[in-house]
Amino acid sequence: MRADVHRFSLKDPSDVSGLTEAIEKGDIDPGKIVAVIGKTHGNGLVNDYTRGYLTLCLSQLVGDRRGVPAESVRKRVPFVFSGGVEGVLSPHYVVFTVDPDAAASGEEKSLAIGVAFTPKLSPSDVGKQRQIDATAEAVIQAMTRAGIKSPDDVHFVQVKGPAFTTDDIVAAGNAGLTCVTENPGKLMGFGRAASALGVAKALGELPANEALETAVLRNFDAYSSVASVSAGVEVCVNEIIVAGLSRTWSGPLTIAHRAIKDALDIVSVTDLARDLGLSPAPQVPAAQARRIRAAFVKCEAQRDGMIRGRRHTMLNDGDIDQQRHIRGAVGAIVAAVLNDTALFVSGGAEHQGPDGGGLIALIVEKMI
Amino acid sequence: MRADVHRFSLKDPSDVSGLTEAIEKGDIDPGKIVAVIGKTHGNGLVNDYTRGYLTLCLSQLVGDRRGVPAESVRKRVPFVFSGGVEGVLSPHYVVFTVDPDAAASGEEKSLAIGVAFTPKLSPSDVGKQRQIDATAEAVIQAMTRAGIKSPDDVHFVQVKGPAFTTDDIVAAGNAGLTCVTENPGKLMGFGRAASALGVAKALGELPANEALETAVLRNFDAYSSVASVSAGVEVCVNEIIVAGLSRTWSGPLTIAHRAIKDALDIVSVTDLARDLGLSPAPQVPAAQARRIRAAFVKCEAQRDGMIRGRRHTMLNDGDIDQQRHIRGAVGAIVAAVLNDTALFVSGGAEHQGPDGGGLIALIVEKMI
Amino acid sequence: MRADVHRFSLKDPSDVSGLTEAIEKGDIDPGKIVAVIGKTHGNGLVNDYTRGYLTLCLSQLVGDRRGVPAESVRKRVPFVFSGGVEGVLSPHYVVFTVDPDAAASGEEKSLAIGVAFTPKLSPSDVGKQRQIDATAEAVIQAMTRAGIKSPDDVHFVQVKGPAFTTDDIVAAGNAGLTCVTENPGKLMGFGRAASALGVAKALGELPANEALETAVLRNFDAYSSVASVSAGVEVCVNEIIVAGLSRTWSGPLTIAHRAIKDALDIVSVTDLARDLGLSPAPQVPAAQARRIRAAFVKCEAQRDGMIRGRRHTMLNDGDIDQQRHIRGAVGAIVAAVLNDTALFVSGGAEHQGPDGGGLIALIVEKMI
Amino acid sequence: MRADVHRFSLKDPSDVSGLTEAIEKGDIDPGKIVAVIGKTHGNGLVNDYTRGYLTLCLSQLVGDRRGVPAESVRKRVPFVFSGGVEGVLSPHYVVFTVDPDAAASGEEKSLAIGVAFTPKLSPSDVGKQRQIDATAEAVIQAMTRAGIKSPDDVHFVQVKGPAFTTDDIVAAGNAGLTCVTENPGKLMGFGRAASALGVAKALGELPANEALETAVLRNFDAYSSVASVSAGVEVCVNEIIVAGLSRTWSGPLTIAHRAIKDALDIVSVTDLARDLGLSPAPQVPAAQARRIRAAFVKCEAQRDGMIRGRRHTMLNDGDIDQQRHIRGAVGAIVAAVLNDTALFVSGGAEHQGPDGGGLIALIVEKMI
Repeated sequence: MRADVHRFSLKDPSDVSGLTEAIEKGDIDPGKIVAVIGKTHGNGLVNDYTRGYLTLCLSQLVGDRRGVPAESVRKRVPFVFSGGVEGVLSPHYVVFTVDPDAAASGEEKSLAIGVAFTPKLSPSDVGKQRQIDATAEAVIQAMTRAGIKSPDDVHFVQVKGPAFTTDDIVAAGNAGLTCVTENPGKLMGFGRAASALGVAKALGELPANEALETAVLRNFDAYSSVASVSAGVEVCVNEIIVAGLSRTWSGPLTIAHRAIKDALDIVSVTDLARDLGLSPAPQVPAAQARRIRAAFVKCEAQRDGMIRGRRHTMLNDGDIDQQRHIRGAVGAIVAAVLNDTALFVSGGAEHQGPDGGGLIALIVEKMI
Repeated sequence: MRADVHRFSLKDPSDVSGLTEAIEKGDIDPGKIVAVIGKTHGNGLVNDYTRGYLTLCLSQLVGDRRGVPAESVRKRVPFVFSGGVEGVLSPHYVVFTVDPDAAASGEEKSLAIGVAFTPKLSPSDVGKQRQIDATAEAVIQAMTRAGIKSPDDVHFVQVKGPAFTTDDIVAAGNAGLTCVTENPGKLMGFGRAASALGVAKALGELPANEALETAVLRNFDAYSSVASVSAGVEVCVNEIIVAGLSRTWSGPLTIAHRAIKDALDIVSVTDLARDLGLSPAPQVPAAQARRIRAAFVKCEAQRDGMIRGRRHTMLNDGDIDQQRHIRGAVGAIVAAVLNDTALFVSGGAEHQGPDGGGLIALIVEKMI
Repeated sequence: MRADVHRFSLKDPSDVSGLTEAIEKGDIDPGKIVAVIGKTHGNGLVNDYTRGYLTLCLSQLVGDRRGVPAESVRKRVPFVFSGGVEGVLSPHYVVFTVDPDAAASGEEKSLAIGVAFTPKLSPSDVGKQRQIDATAEAVIQAMTRAGIKSPDDVHFVQVKGPAFTTDDIVAAGNAGLTCVTENPGKLMGFGRAASALGVAKALGELPANEALETAVLRNFDAYSSVASVSAGVEVCVNEIIVAGLSRTWSGPLTIAHRAIKDALDIVSVTDLARDLGLSPAPQVPAAQARRIRAAFVKCEAQRDGMIRGRRHTMLNDGDIDQQRHIRGAVGAIVAAVLNDTALFVSGGAEHQGPDGGGLIALIVEKMI
Repeated sequence: MRADVHRFSLKDPSDVSGLTEAIEKGDIDPGKIVAVIGKTHGNGLVNDYTRGYLTLCLSQLVGDRRGVPAESVRKRVPFVFSGGVEGVLSPHYVVFTVDPDAAASGEEKSLAIGVAFTPKLSPSDVGKQRQIDATAEAVIQAMTRAGIKSPDDVHFVQVKGPAFTTDDIVAAGNAGLTCVTENPGKLMGFGRAASALGVAKALGELPANEALETAVLRNFDAYSSVASVSAGVEVCVNEIIVAGLSRTWSGPLTIAHRAIKDALDIVSVTDLARDLGLSPAPQVPAAQARRIRAAFVKCEAQRDGMIRGRRHTMLNDGDIDQQRHIRGAVGAIVAAVLNDTALFVSGGAEHQGPDGGGLIALIVEKMI
């Protein structure tokens, strides 16, 4: 098997010209697309409809070119979009393709991709044990499909789970179901948290008897160092994409990751770039930066209102949501090091990397 | 003469506990305070009243301790506050003191500070030749007071000019005066631009015959590499603070600056840190970072909607002002390098540094 | 001919369940749809993609049901969506259908609808004479199609024109074209203004020799009392919908309009309701309110920062755009009188109704 | 005793020119000021510092004129400011004065004012029984001071309680105290709710055995129809102002109130105006509107996301807080009826009026 990764810029959330051209040129076989991850123009909060808009446009494009309905594409291919391109960040999407017929490359490990879906989740499942366990099972399924045997070879697990509006939450209540909170934005946080604990459970980062709903948004020592979770109103299951390394795959790409300790942790970003043979001194030179195929970052505003002993104001701001603040800040630091602004930077890193920090995963072309 | 610089954190815009304590301990003689620069909690736009609030509180404190009315303090001491501590940035203020009786240190140059004020400016002066010329004269006056002879020894010129609300602009119109624009936010931009050209004129960065109102917000090749201009409703003149180096001053502090070429220019930030003997690799170690006494940054969203070939969305955002975006982004990059979040980062860098970029000035303790 | 008007609520900008059901029940023949107007969830500013999202979803639905491509539906049917449902306002869309075979009803006038399009407009046409004149011609064409002979019988003209992002404006500049402004949000205002003057020219509200680009955003005494103009990135021509009364049409619906003098002008809203046989005392009773089929409102924040002698703050707010403020305010007043929150309320009323005010048009079932 | 009420417009949050002039003219004796209530320019959320800024400026003015320190003024006089003048609303403040020596007017009841304070409240008291009970005791104390015997004669109880930032909440946690929530904005809501239940308890609107912390933000059938509660970081006790009617007071003013049933309840606003002899048909004529001395409104976004069967979007909005939406909407409705925009409109009506609604109180000159 052989994985490839293509990144396209996005003029607006309906702009699928990049993938269209790649298909028309023969660079991408639409039948081999297994997942899409991207950053869209919206606010990344509950009322962000740019995620669904791009999902619709891309799934219709792929469906058209494959001669199948868009709905059936969406059942098979996760489209994981996170809104919010604050500051220097640039809207874009990353298309993952898999050629199942390519030969393994022998000793060298290459990028491996696997995809899976949980059953449908209702508002009352979000943040609860059912979401933790369903996510863990789907992660194991995706690893198996990717031929990744050791959790150590998993470098990035993207989860996209459902968000619900007041409408849905009220309807669930009327149907006798109990949600962990009635606040739509807060429910998104519970969902990200439970899903991350599900990843940690699957990968053994957390013993099963600690991956419990009682830990959700409470025990922040419990986390996965490779989980990245987004939520959006446009999906109703947890969609799972596992990216790692395997000798059963071939191809020009590799992946690595690092935890981010706090919002100023430029050192881990630089170290990760060096792990992959890049030379950030302090910035990856433009010629080298072309080796970067995709970058995924999770981050969050530190809960105690401080960063390295000084106050930040992100948690008290009534005008700009804390997620928009932190994406803009950490996104800029990573962009400055990598010399690249088309980064997937997602806020809300509950149980995704160390508390107050997050994580970064990079897919790059192997050095020759 | 001898200059000193003290930085205090700010819990809220009325929190003057830091300076109060320093005065009570005898660390600062209130009679020697010549200027204050800081970042407050507001949005940094027209309706930001946190700047005026802190000005009131600090001027009353200084007045109380000196036994003079707050108003007379404000006439002598510029209080330059810029709102907006997006992302990792931390609210704070920097107090400049001058001891006129200290002996010069001989060969070595030390931090030198000079202050001046323009006459009162009306809404119809903003963005026009009168603001350019009045600013240029005041800069020269401040240099003279600072004993700085060569423009090459000027490393930072902070200007705080007036902003006007719709109220004021309408009143000016009714009085027969013509403003360059009726939009209060846009008028702030014109004022910053004209003031920056005034600094450039004073320092010879721009020939006098090019420092014209016709260049304002038009000829972006014309700029000052040391001017930092803010505007706010709480002042009605241009207040000028010149910071540079002079052999007639002594003391433990030095200053340097660099232009910032664009929003990803981490290289210039790192180089400036190295110029001053710090070791950013990629981050200044915490122990070294204690040498930093103040950092001043100007930045702006690139006018063509691109950064190094990729789109940004700052100029199209109807929810978050472009200045809030860019302060959060560039502020984070500088904070990550300097290992310090109490930075004065100000947006709206019209004619302040290269177009699409800005500048950074650092005051640090000299190496021993 | 016979016009009908159907209003559907909108759970999210892709929710076309209302029209789908109406088509499936046989209540609406998709081939008879001539126009759609609605309010979507976005901010109503440049970066509002909910308008395009709903346009895509609805045009695909209609195309599917008619067996033609969505693109060809969009060329024939204006989809005019305005973002921003602040305060009590409710997202919804209104579908206009025309049965060309229905007999005229004789003496009584009934609702008449006509549609037309201008040629393509570039960023450099916006706010200029070409947009004024092209709009005027299209309005006359739409009146003719609607069989409305007297301008007095025109009660509402909806125009949707193009908005452009920084991207487009820069590209136009590079191609040697000059835009009236480089600010995307401001360009939207110029476009609304010129289009409104085009409507006024077509209807004789303004002599041709005063409907000039020199009047755009300058002479606010020049206005149309029936023009409602929105702009959005999802169109590149001015789409025109003329609604009025004609004896050549039959059906159960009628339309009327009133100018709104300022943001507190509840009297005109109440008077209009009375004109149409409703009893607002002060609120239209729920049973009567069911006669309301659609309501269209334009409004704007008064330019001098005052309303009836007291200051408002809408023009100085850096956190919430003035259009969002005024839509929420005037929308609530109209909603309270009409007992109906599914109102099309659009900000930016340049030359649309009296300066500082706007207009309201109501389509209701005739009294029996 | 005799109460008077003076309303002043506010150019910016430091503008005390209105009261200054009234004192200088002899219209107001600064020694007789017992309370000030107003609306300032901020966002009305946690990071709104305009409330504290105006409090500082006004208390200094009053202190100066009385020859006492501002701090001692603030201990005796509640300064209750709510941020947020969305839409048509106009920043202003209302000064209450009491002349203790005026004779009672006999049979006719007149406006009566009483003031009291609770002990200091810590973050861990907010939303809990201690806040309910301390508020109830202070309300009874204020009624006694106002000489109001029957709860039926109480028409408005304004409470201003403390808000806390993340800083404070973390500090409380470190000190071993438990707060009901760690979210600063949510803690404001708990505080408003508990304080309102305290008012309901004091006035017998709720039996003591139901005015329990278990009802806070849970049992929304429990409410006070006269309580209006705001919270802000600038106070650390609950400040109570009781306004009602009493025969032991004389003077030209009277007060009345009505519950507001939901966000469209223009009927109750109109009815209240009629109760007081005004003629809203639909708008109070300008000449009559001059009788209005102050208007106080509480309102909130309906919790189920609906208003009269149609969706609203206020609870899902990540860009504009729900309180800003609802203040702008309900404020506009009240302003349109009363022909007056200088209204105190405050969001967050937890247990203040019917769920999803709120209340309105009006102080007007008696009819002659």
